[in-house]
Amino acid sequence: MAGQTTAYDPRTFRGLTFHDAKSAFADGSDTPSAYLERCLETVAAREPVVQAFASLNEEAARAAAAASSKRWKDGNPLSSIDGMPVGIKDLLETRDMPTQMGCAAFDGNFPKNDNAAVWALRQAGAVIFGKTVTAELGGNHPGPTTNPFDPARTAGGSSSGSAAAVGSAMMPAAIGTQVGGSIIRPAAFCGNVAIKPSQGGINRGERQATSMSTHGVHANTIEDMWQVAVEIVARVGGDRGGPGIMGPMTTPAARKPERLIVLETAGWQVLDDASKAAFEELLGRIKAEGIELLRRGDAPAVETLEQGIAEAGRIAASITGWENQWTYRNILDANPDGISDRAKGVLERAEAMTVGDYRALLTERAMAQALYADVAPLADAVITLACPGPAPIWTGDTPNAPLAARPTGDAIFNYPSSMLFAPAVTTPKLAVDGLPVGVQLMGRPGEDAKMTGLARWLLDGVPPVVV
Amino acid sequence: MAGQTTAYDPRTFRGLTFHDAKSAFADGSDTPSAYLERCLETVAAREPVVQAFASLNEEAARAAAAASSKRWKDGNPLSSIDGMPVGIKDLLETRDMPTQMGCAAFDGNFPKNDNAAVWALRQAGAVIFGKTVTAELGGNHPGPTTNPFDPARTAGGSSSGSAAAVGSAMMPAAIGTQVGGSIIRPAAFCGNVAIKPSQGGINRGERQATSMSTHGVHANTIEDMWQVAVEIVARVGGDRGGPGIMGPMTTPAARKPERLIVLETAGWQVLDDASKAAFEELLGRIKAEGIELLRRGDAPAVETLEQGIAEAGRIAASITGWENQWTYRNILDANPDGISDRAKGVLERAEAMTVGDYRALLTERAMAQALYADVAPLADAVITLACPGPAPIWTGDTPNAPLAARPTGDAIFNYPSSMLFAPAVTTPKLAVDGLPVGVQLMGRPGEDAKMTGLARWLLDGVPPVVV
Repeated sequence: MAGQTTAYDPRTFRGLTFHDAKSAFADGSDTPSAYLERCLETVAAREPVVQAFASLNEEAARAAAAASSKRWKDGNPLSSIDGMPVGIKDLLETRDMPTQMGCAAFDGNFPKNDNAAVWALRQAGAVIFGKTVTAELGGNHPGPTTNPFDPARTAGGSSSGSAAAVGSAMMPAAIGTQVGGSIIRPAAFCGNVAIKPSQGGINRGERQATSMSTHGVHANTIEDMWQVAVEIVARVGGDRGGPGIMGPMTTPAARKPERLIVLETAGWQVLDDASKAAFEELLGRIKAEGIELLRRGDAPAVETLEQGIAEAGRIAASITGWENQWTYRNILDANPDGISDRAKGVLERAEAMTVGDYRALLTERAMAQALYADVAPLADAVITLACPGPAPIWTGDTPNAPLAARPTGDAIFNYPSSMLFAPAVTTPKLAVDGLPVGVQLMGRPGEDAKMTGLARWLLDGVPPVVV
Repeated sequence: MAGQTTAYDPRTFRGLTFHDAKSAFADGSDTPSAYLERCLETVAAREPVVQAFASLNEEAARAAAAASSKRWKDGNPLSSIDGMPVGIKDLLETRDMPTQMGCAAFDGNFPKNDNAAVWALRQAGAVIFGKTVTAELGGNHPGPTTNPFDPARTAGGSSSGSAAAVGSAMMPAAIGTQVGGSIIRPAAFCGNVAIKPSQGGINRGERQATSMSTHGVHANTIEDMWQVAVEIVARVGGDRGGPGIMGPMTTPAARKPERLIVLETAGWQVLDDASKAAFEELLGRIKAEGIELLRRGDAPAVETLEQGIAEAGRIAASITGWENQWTYRNILDANPDGISDRAKGVLERAEAMTVGDYRALLTERAMAQALYADVAPLADAVITLACPGPAPIWTGDTPNAPLAARPTGDAIFNYPSSMLFAPAVTTPKLAVDGLPVGVQLMGRPGEDAKMTGLARWLLDGVPPVVV
């Protein structure tokens, strides 16, 4: 199978799950160690093509799984995710693996610290067994990861390895991070369920550099997604100064909405016809369940919101570029060849900004958030695509040609939730030309649990669409 | 003079200033290089006893001063602080000096990055010539720095070296940081003017670990204090996601208040009689200027506020302890002897907390902030002491005895502004037993410029008190 295209069909695709393995751990018919070995077998089979990992530490993983196996045998698991193999995006520090951030300047960087979320996962008994590839510094200069359903295509970015490792069944869940579209987009390209929480929802630990960055979770089921998030937050909370995700310690029940706002976003203009048709077909199925849909054509408030988020990409990218500039400048000055020309371009644009430009962008963002606060209560959630169609083909830059603008795909459907500090959950509801296309639900800040329940309903209650 | 006690008298004390040196740079009768050499002469004389510096880089400072001298000669200074020697608290990274954070685990740590504020200072032409001693990791385990007016006493902490270097005329200004009371307290003990800005007022760069941490400025005059702050913010803004200090590029004019809220705070209970009398005398002089004073006895809203901030110390210290715990845990695990027993005690208390405890503290803090928002508009500002009397004597822990609780003094007068995210400016208005005691003005978040103008009036318009 490795190296081959595998048509994605959400009606039959079954990713690797963990929540349903625990009863076998409890009755002794399975163990976390055996579960891990099955993951490692898949890694051996898939990794040569998928290339999801920046580092692996099989020895440490086996030791953690053995300890978990003993806890399950003794009837004393530490949490709902005790024994769960979890991948960690290589932007987060881990004390037993290097943290190289997809950036030449950090080759061999090995600070031997645990990010707060990693610490929490270990406390919960999770098995940390790999660092997953990130696009350089969480930006858009790609690593080697390929899409698990077609190696000629990108896995998305910047959480490329997390999305691809989950999508190829190498592990049931992985941590990603998003500033613009770095969790939801790759998840949508790789058939994952994933959450980009409300701003501040999961403690970022040492990675607090930018005002829109978040930790999130990639998984194959809503249960695994939620349990990883909530077990982290139960131990380390949200970002400093806020409460973090508030919600039950078990996955919220499926929750059927009464009304959804359908947002086209700026992405509608760049969307292929097949994906548009698939999304419209899904909306028809949702409507057939008796759910009212509010769209720009029939609700003036929604039209206003569409206009208010139309510039989300410019606003989000410029804010983040400004906020990252001193980090980038330090790296570049110390190591002129240590970052890509793409990253140098980001720095150049940021350094052309003034504090006044940045403040004006913050005001634009605040106005969009105020508008969203007014409009969002009209419905239970917003529904929109999670990516502009299937993952694009990516086989590398062309020598002597200008750099491709978006090698890991376009975050155009993701900037709104980032800019609005809104929780977003993507679900693999569509297949277009044999490739996954995600659909996301977006709530108001703090509604992470509610979005999880709504997503659970969408997964269970509405048939997926294949075109 | 080195090693001797020098009675502090605010009526005659003149610290080293910069703002009034620029006309001589402009007309060629002085140069930044000559200014720096005078600073270095003072360092040679005072540093053996004061011990304000963790590192010095005279060569880099001389090169920066020479470049500045050329700009002044050419009539092209980069900013209002071009050529100003500025010390940097050793919690902030500087690319030309180690960053050891007063912590054994960081001995020799030399990341060769510039913190955003340091980068901004260099862009403004400031001369970075030393890293100033910090209490360990910004906590309360002291470094070697002594009080410039009495070497048997603490300089305060954690910005010990910044306060002492400014107080002993080794430099006109220095960067400090505060989470609980780490700028205002040492400044008050050392006769500085200093600003702890509104939360987020100055970009913390890589030092964004806790929800109450701030960068601030120590100086000998209000002009130098403001110009350093505003020149940084003009280049790097405030913390990511906020506008930072908003205000004029020249120091706000003196502004006489109509009405001040006098807060006793919990510190009143631990205050010595002489400091209390000196503060009351100052209040009498303020009242004699026609200013109305609102105190707990005569204004019920002020009594409510006093009660609302009575627990500021517990709330602030517990929140910060929780927020720092993963950093401390990583250090301790990697290097069991790398942090002090004091820091280990802080970690132990933090690790006994739950997320629920932390969230409850955030709610307490939010309630105090809401109360402050209601009461603060009754007056132009709050006035209160900046420290509980003169700097205490500190000659080291006693072997085999319990660790002294507060070797760098008590932050009891400082927790309120930290917890309330409020701007605070301290002024050296009192001398008690030949030692400085600061008085601070505290405003609403965003009122940094207003507090600066009010402090300028207090400095110029009300005679200091010596008891």
